Amino acid sequence: MKLIHFLYNRKECWGALEGSFIRPLKDEPFKGIKLFSRKIPLNGVKFLPPAKATKIILIGLNYKDHARELNMNIPGEPLIFLKPTTALIGHKGAIIYPAGVTQLDYEGELAMVLKKQCKNIKPRDFSKYILGYTCLNDVTARDLQRKDIQWTRAKSFDSFCPVGPYLETQVNPQNLNIRSYLNGQLRQNSQTSQFIFKPEHLLSFVSRIMTLYPGDIISTGTPFGVGSMKKGDKIEIEIEGIGRLINYVK
Amino acid sequence: MKLIHFLYNRKECWGALEGSFIRPLKDEPFKGIKLFSRKIPLNGVKFLPPAKATKIILIGLNYKDHARELNMNIPGEPLIFLKPTTALIGHKGAIIYPAGVTQLDYEGELAMVLKKQCKNIKPRDFSKYILGYTCLNDVTARDLQRKDIQWTRAKSFDSFCPVGPYLETQVNPQNLNIRSYLNGQLRQNSQTSQFIFKPEHLLSFVSRIMTLYPGDIISTGTPFGVGSMKKGDKIEIEIEGIGRLINYVK
Repeated sequence: MKLIHFLYNRKECWGALEGSFIRPLKDEPFKGIKLFSRKIPLNGVKFLPPAKATKIILIGLNYKDHARELNMNIPGEPLIFLKPTTALIGHKGAIIYPAGVTQLDYEGELAMVLKKQCKNIKPRDFSKYILGYTCLNDVTARDLQRKDIQWTRAKSFDSFCPVGPYLETQVNPQNLNIRSYLNGQLRQNSQTSQFIFKPEHLLSFVSRIMTLYPGDIISTGTPFGVGSMKKGDKIEIEIEGIGRLINYVK
Repeated sequence: MKLIHFLYNRKECWGALEGSFIRPLKDEPFKGIKLFSRKIPLNGVKFLPPAKATKIILIGLNYKDHARELNMNIPGEPLIFLKPTTALIGHKGAIIYPAGVTQLDYEGELAMVLKKQCKNIKPRDFSKYILGYTCLNDVTARDLQRKDIQWTRAKSFDSFCPVGPYLETQVNPQNLNIRSYLNGQLRQNSQTSQFIFKPEHLLSFVSRIMTLYPGDIISTGTPFGVGSMKKGDKIEIEIEGIGRLINYVK
């Protein structure tokens, strides 16, 4: 099922996609999925990030092809970092090019959204705690990332975390095509089978550090082929079975 | 005025300290400070972090004496990083020593708490946006900090961000004694006059990156003298005019 988080009549709503319509949910999907019978046309609603994040955890290097591209060794443990929730924007939202930044890069990623509060999760219990999967763009001011010894500034500007369009609750994350298109041209083209650490290991690793809450986001890293964007560019992150996250740089 | 955030009859409340009593606030202090006339004894309430953080921003190196201690050059710009809000604990809360960590350090800091939503603040407008100041302990698993190229894991465990006991709304942050005591012994002893970047410049710098919300925390870095804690240790961060944040390692 494809869940959508959206604004309708200025109200924040969740729904399930049915063709070109949305069936609204009676409550947030973290509390169980109960659908109303009425339908809203998809056309015209404003997409919100399909999450309710109190935190966003990302992984530094998690594709074998990206590690080779960077001439880096395969890490022995996941490398985690955070983005602030103020970086979130939805499908079709504008990525703002910050004043003073000279290189703004896209990084297409598969992200998972938590269903339940949890701590110290075993990999085998993973699926109980994940509500679904979505596309995420880990927008990065590469010039600032090179300059600072921590990546926080480079990755934390408002609008630097586009997420969406849908949260797919039934996909298997182990073997999905993931692609990024810049102005319609294919730039990243990989497969989640290239993961160094699988989603169940990432959840387990992160949950041994910090308590996770419903709606929190863990992203799984980006594959080979990251590159730069200019003002006016259209960037798309497409993941098989989930959808295509589209944003414009402003 | 010393604001206190506390649990009373299992309810989350804000109040103002009056000797050994608390005068409760009618609403959160971000919405203006209106006091009830009744009083609650301070003795016996559970301290909560005096904030309502959607994010916690910290500064890597901001005391001249600490830069000399580390043999590092004075940085040209603040170095920021984030802690997740799940790391927060209050005055007298327990710092949990994580399994597998071999060196757990305290770092005493002066933290400021935001009053209003803001973005792109000029240093001269600073005081309009700050509700007050408190003590913060940037607890760090130093072994993991040395191992990882990002500091996130080392600084993000649950309980790694003690804050409190009070939020002082009337203190001038420019010239305060700041001290840490480990089991009663003085270990950090500095002055906020040693700041490389003053609070108004930190707020301005951070607010040019990300939107800040009422209750968000910006900490100002730690001085010379950081050191390690063992299980059972008592760690105290004392700042002149604010109070003494006490926590135990468990």
